[in-house]
Amino acid sequence: MIKKTRLFTPGPTPSFPPAQQVMAESEIHHRTEEFKRILREALAGLRYFFQTQEDILIFASSGTGAMESAVANLLSPGDRALVVVGGKFGERWEELCKAYQVGVEKIAIPYGQALDPRVVRQRLEAGPSVGAVFVQAVETSTATEYDVRSLGAIVHEFPDTCLVVDAITGLGTMELRTQDWHLDLVVGGSQKAFMLPPGLSFVSVSEKAWRRVERSGSPRYYFDYRRERKSVARDQTAYTPAVSLIVGLSQVLRFVQEQGLDNVIRGARLQAEATRAAARALGLQVFSHSPCAACTGIRPPEGIPSTRVVQHLRKEFGLVIAAGQGELKEQLFRIAHIGYFDFYDILGMIGCLELTLEQLGHSLSLGSGVRAALQTYCQRREPGEPGE
Amino acid sequence: MIKKTRLFTPGPTPSFPPAQQVMAESEIHHRTEEFKRILREALAGLRYFFQTQEDILIFASSGTGAMESAVANLLSPGDRALVVVGGKFGERWEELCKAYQVGVEKIAIPYGQALDPRVVRQRLEAGPSVGAVFVQAVETSTATEYDVRSLGAIVHEFPDTCLVVDAITGLGTMELRTQDWHLDLVVGGSQKAFMLPPGLSFVSVSEKAWRRVERSGSPRYYFDYRRERKSVARDQTAYTPAVSLIVGLSQVLRFVQEQGLDNVIRGARLQAEATRAAARALGLQVFSHSPCAACTGIRPPEGIPSTRVVQHLRKEFGLVIAAGQGELKEQLFRIAHIGYFDFYDILGMIGCLELTLEQLGHSLSLGSGVRAALQTYCQRREPGEPGE
Repeated sequence: MIKKTRLFTPGPTPSFPPAQQVMAESEIHHRTEEFKRILREALAGLRYFFQTQEDILIFASSGTGAMESAVANLLSPGDRALVVVGGKFGERWEELCKAYQVGVEKIAIPYGQALDPRVVRQRLEAGPSVGAVFVQAVETSTATEYDVRSLGAIVHEFPDTCLVVDAITGLGTMELRTQDWHLDLVVGGSQKAFMLPPGLSFVSVSEKAWRRVERSGSPRYYFDYRRERKSVARDQTAYTPAVSLIVGLSQVLRFVQEQGLDNVIRGARLQAEATRAAARALGLQVFSHSPCAACTGIRPPEGIPSTRVVQHLRKEFGLVIAAGQGELKEQLFRIAHIGYFDFYDILGMIGCLELTLEQLGHSLSLGSGVRAALQTYCQRREPGEPGE
Repeated sequence: MIKKTRLFTPGPTPSFPPAQQVMAESEIHHRTEEFKRILREALAGLRYFFQTQEDILIFASSGTGAMESAVANLLSPGDRALVVVGGKFGERWEELCKAYQVGVEKIAIPYGQALDPRVVRQRLEAGPSVGAVFVQAVETSTATEYDVRSLGAIVHEFPDTCLVVDAITGLGTMELRTQDWHLDLVVGGSQKAFMLPPGLSFVSVSEKAWRRVERSGSPRYYFDYRRERKSVARDQTAYTPAVSLIVGLSQVLRFVQEQGLDNVIRGARLQAEATRAAARALGLQVFSHSPCAACTGIRPPEGIPSTRVVQHLRKEFGLVIAAGQGELKEQLFRIAHIGYFDFYDILGMIGCLELTLEQLGHSLSLGSGVRAALQTYCQRREPGEPGE
């Protein structure tokens, strides 16, 4: 039988087909008026996506490169940082700080638990001054959302401390008002809600962050925000940009503006809610106590390792989901809702998950997961918006 | 929310993405060795698809063009034909015969009923000799399959009568052994199980059919099989071929050969069976008493016209299905399984159909349709083939 391959991983996510088209045709040189126009348009679209009128910079790198750039541009060797660590990507902030000789004060959160912002306030008030607080909007490894809005309000009270948010997975799946919420540096990546292949990263930089950038003594060249800002003022990037991806980006951002960012976010949240309802109906437990909308982490049934669920879905149905990461590998599997998905996709995904669990020996009432998802759809639909 | 557009019409059907790729790149000239090689490969693939070692001809035309070619090449003005008419495409055979001054003897079948092959035998034995029997493998307008295998055995006994099968919708969704079953002329089209855009049609021509072709007195030029056969012997087409579609065709046929035609057919049949089970579980009636696997015709709930179901699915979920045709317009809606679909697609489709029916006021137990589809999948899966 025909079996299509479909990505349901929390990055890369399915690409937006019209962007694939324009990327395939994008043989243009980057030092041209044509490219300048496209870059200008992409940057305007990014400001909408990030909800900020402050600076946004684009790098040809993965998200980790942009995370590193935040550390290198904001902090100097010997500076101190507060790092929220609730999973693999929190650990990455910690590793990056250490690589740049930044002293790390860690706020450890049990996997899948919510962050209590008051803990951050206590540490900022009690301890010696820190240059930056590093956090995830969504900790992808545990599919957990953190309350960055409250963090923004707290850190805003400390004039020499910046809030750095890894929103690579969070952007486009949750409300995230970069400027209003005082998120000084927000990191994004192309292979997530931007519905593109990997290869582009984005950072937004607040005025407060720029003051730190100007005095950072850390070594940096490729990721130097000062040089990049000068280039952006001339509708350019400092070094050769990933041209095709930027062409695709501008196409995607036009689409998001047409759809409305709120609607895109609402779609992801509805899919996540439907998936959680389905999991519970199938007798499974959602891994996170503060679940995000970008992907849903689900504990596998007793006695069935996550990787068997992952392998079966791929082999039998062509559906590519993710197991846990690191020590969480067998403790959860993760289904993405970030990017180019609609409700039909969630129904197909849950149906195939039911068949998979049934075939692996989990006792379930066939169809109960999909029914819960359908009920979620009916309950959430506001009256009078059938044609949305 | 994001809403993808998906074709679930019984032609055009979703295109095969790797074929879209090669078609986009197919700027080659047709009088070249490169094109000859591609055409040779496509013709070999078509012989596999049609299950015949006899001649296959390719035309740049819609399926109707190829249907016309069958009449013009097999019959002369004043000849007689037996035409099975059980829907819009049976009527098309009738109209074509009349356009060529062929006397039509009609076997009328009520919409959605099976064909009793014995009726054809009786007419052939009783009446004056007919040059050809025209029939559909699948009558698309009523989603009904006819027993062409039995017809083949019957017509084979009459040395001067050819059996002409419109298998435009049937091919690739049902067993159809052109040569073994003595189907003298079988018509196909690119926009169906060939997973391509419309624009190509195919005919297989048996030795018995060639004898009629040689003596047909009907006017024809573009569709003249004699000229086309000579061109095919030189790996060419008589007139400018639809180059990109033939390039795509050769890609699709390679895929079908890799998958195995039996598996492709099995997939369509499973989807059709699951859809019928879902319809019944939702309290709906399958329109046909001899349902085909290419598409499923479903009677809408009492009081809800088919076109409302069609419109709602398109507006709310981006799913494009077909209402009935002609006078059957409001009596059924049709969901395709022909071409590039997998089981995930059926689950998404049925789930969205449930939401649509619920929103249009049909009383149903949400999830019951999808459950029936899932159960069909579980029952049909043979043991030991999880990784098929």
